[in-house]
Amino acid sequence: MALRLSVWFDYASPYSYLAVSRVERLAAAQLPGAEIDWRPFLLGPIFQRRSSNPSPFQDVSPAERGYRWRDIERHAALYAIPWHRPTRYPPMGLNAARLTLVALAEGWGAALIQVVYRAAFAEDRDIADTDVLHSLVAGLGRDAPAALARAGAGEIKADLTRQVETAINGGLFGAPSFVVGAGPDGTGGEVFWGNDRLEQALTWAAKPWL
Amino acid sequence: MALRLSVWFDYASPYSYLAVSRVERLAAAQLPGAEIDWRPFLLGPIFQRRSSNPSPFQDVSPAERGYRWRDIERHAALYAIPWHRPTRYPPMGLNAARLTLVALAEGWGAALIQVVYRAAFAEDRDIADTDVLHSLVAGLGRDAPAALARAGAGEIKADLTRQVETAINGGLFGAPSFVVGAGPDGTGGEVFWGNDRLEQALTWAAKPWL
Repeated sequence: MALRLSVWFDYASPYSYLAVSRVERLAAAQLPGAEIDWRPFLLGPIFQRRSSNPSPFQDVSPAERGYRWRDIERHAALYAIPWHRPTRYPPMGLNAARLTLVALAEGWGAALIQVVYRAAFAEDRDIADTDVLHSLVAGLGRDAPAALARAGAGEIKADLTRQVETAINGGLFGAPSFVVGAGPDGTGGEVFWGNDRLEQALTWAAKPWL
Repeated sequence: MALRLSVWFDYASPYSYLAVSRVERLAAAQLPGAEIDWRPFLLGPIFQRRSSNPSPFQDVSPAERGYRWRDIERHAALYAIPWHRPTRYPPMGLNAARLTLVALAEGWGAALIQVVYRAAFAEDRDIADTDVLHSLVAGLGRDAPAALARAGAGEIKADLTRQVETAINGGLFGAPSFVVGAGPDGTGGEVFWGNDRLEQALTWAAKPWL
């Protein structure tokens, strides 16, 4: 059976952008034949359930907030990934996450994920805007009105809610998270949290060292 | 002039242990001749000034707390660094930090830092205990009673307080932090936060990419 890496991501998360932009290339090099199991979810409901822990980008000191943007900018430059600090932050990723579930179900999810992230963090476009999503889907040669209609329907909404519950029950608390050896729901394996753990997750997937 | 890397660390921080255990070896390999500028400080007073941000190891969800210990354990194994999860956490690092300022002033700080961290995170010893500190200093062949007496005197206490103020004024907010190109007080350069940024800090010190 091919190795599978579950990649949990939130469109509001710039560190998810850094990881999502790299994971296919790194996995192809380090884990030939591995399958990426894309898992869009939302951190908002997870942060809301915490007693005190704020979003990593809000409610922190100005020094730390400034540091984080600098850190991301440095990473993007190091990775040669296009980067434009979003003028609206955080992006409202709900609609894009629902649309991604549609695309994944229809087999074009991996392509959509890349263009949505690029719109949010390289092109400074508002991914909450239906027109923006429409143009991204059309740009992939897909039926945008149909996909957006499906993304707004009750079934997909419930799917995303369930996915967030799955993340919480599976002990996930941040994005991006990588789960190696997960069960069918994308949880239950060895968890690695953060863009800066992607290489470790891949190394672990090839051969656990502990 | 030799390159200088300012390394800000807190004895309560296991990620500082991971970094401090590696920095001399990595710097020697990547930045021959570079000087490590050791900067003990305390995160406690910094966390207390935040409005809401808790310590990274307390007041977080059980899932996240469990993850962090696992993450540290994985790193220690990957780096082949001895690790024993401390039965008392966090260690009270105040006395050890003051003692370190004494040792740095007397030229044996780098050696002390390694044995204190090892006591805390590999040998499960209580580094708040004067007897433990005494034995660590004696083990380095130094005059333990004299060093401990100096560590408890007003001048060193004021030095540590000043060092924490310097960190805050310099925009530091976590440990370990690495500052490349810092001024004489160890701040003012390019800041990298976290054990997982040590390699980047060294790469940056050799050649900034942005």
